[in-house]
Amino acid sequence: MPPLTKDVIKFGHFIVTSQVFHLSPLSFALVNIKPLLPGHVLVSPRRIVPRFNDLSIDEVQDLFLTVQRVSRMVERVFKATSLNIAIQDGVDAGQSVPHVHAHIIPRKRADLEGFGGTDAIYSMMEGEDGDLDRHFNERSGSDPSTTTNGQGRGKFPAVDADESRTPRNEEEMEREAQWLAEEMAKDEKEYG
Amino acid sequence: MPPLTKDVIKFGHFIVTSQVFHLSPLSFALVNIKPLLPGHVLVSPRRIVPRFNDLSIDEVQDLFLTVQRVSRMVERVFKATSLNIAIQDGVDAGQSVPHVHAHIIPRKRADLEGFGGTDAIYSMMEGEDGDLDRHFNERSGSDPSTTTNGQGRGKFPAVDADESRTPRNEEEMEREAQWLAEEMAKDEKEYG
Repeated sequence: MPPLTKDVIKFGHFIVTSQVFHLSPLSFALVNIKPLLPGHVLVSPRRIVPRFNDLSIDEVQDLFLTVQRVSRMVERVFKATSLNIAIQDGVDAGQSVPHVHAHIIPRKRADLEGFGGTDAIYSMMEGEDGDLDRHFNERSGSDPSTTTNGQGRGKFPAVDADESRTPRNEEEMEREAQWLAEEMAKDEKEYG
Repeated sequence: MPPLTKDVIKFGHFIVTSQVFHLSPLSFALVNIKPLLPGHVLVSPRRIVPRFNDLSIDEVQDLFLTVQRVSRMVERVFKATSLNIAIQDGVDAGQSVPHVHAHIIPRKRADLEGFGGTDAIYSMMEGEDGDLDRHFNERSGSDPSTTTNGQGRGKFPAVDADESRTPRNEEEMEREAQWLAEEMAKDEKEYG
C-alpha cells in the first residue's frame, strides 16, 4: 500500500506522517504511540491550533465527520461495543500537545474490570495525554522542559492497565497505520 | 424572555424543555440537573438516538457547531480557561441516558486542586452521568430499574467535589437556562 500522502503531517511540533491512517480534506487520524486500549486512536485538524474554538466551521464539520468514520471503523475492527470520545481543550483541562485532538477509545463490556471499572479510562487517558507528549519528546530528542507536559496535572494517581507497557516503535505503528488504512478503505466502499 | 420553542424537547424519555437554552436546526443545549462545575452543560441532537454513529452527516455537523458555539459562551460566561468535551458513546463507555450527548465542562487552573487534580473531572463526570439518569427518574417518578443507570459502572469510587450537593429544582434550572439563552444571543450578535 503506498503512503497516504507525500505531505509531512504534524501533530503539534511532532512529525507523525508514518502514523497517519486516514486523511480527509481538513483532518487526519493517527495511531497512538501508547494506546490505552486496543484501537485507541487520535483525530486532529491538519491546521495546528490549540483550541477547539480556533477551528473554522469547515474544520469543525470535517473533524467530526472524520471522528464518526474513524470511530465506526475502530469499533468494528477491534470488536468493541462502545466508544469514549473526548477532547481536552486547553491546558487546564489536561491537554498536553497544544494541537486540537479527539481521543477515540473503543470499549467492551467490563474491559477495565479489575483496573477501576468503566470510568478508569479517563484517568488513564489523562496520564496518556501527558505520556504522549513525553514519549514523542524522548523519541525526537526535544527538550521536555520546553513543552506543556505536566502542567496542571499529576495530582491524581494515573490508573494504568499495564504500568510496564513501553511506547511502540515506528515500525509497529506504521504496520498498524497501514492495516487501519486498509480497513478505512473497506468502509469507504460500503458507506461511501 | 419568551420560551425558546413551543416544541417539547426530550432528552432520552425525559422532558427537558425548560432546561433548554439553545436550539439549532438539529440540536439543543440544556443546563444540567447536577452540574459538576459551574457551567457544565449538555448538547444533544434533537432526534433521540443512542449512538454517535446513528447520526446523519447533517446531524454530526450541526451538533459540533452547536458544541463549539456553546463552549465559547460557557467559557466566557463562567470565566474559564479550558474545557472538557466528552461523549460516552454506548453503555460500555459509561453512557446512562441512551440519547447522544456531549458534556461541556468549563475548566480553570487548579479548579479541582484538593479533589484529585485536573483529571478528577472524569470520574466525577462518570458518576454524574449515572446521577443524571437517576435524578431525572426520581423527579419524574419513573421506575429506575427500567433504565440503563448503573450498568457497567460503579466499581470506581466517584470523586465528588461536593458529596452533599442536591439536584437543582426546575425553577433554578429555568433561571439559568434563560440567563444562558441571553448570553448565547449576545454571542450571536458578535459572531453571527
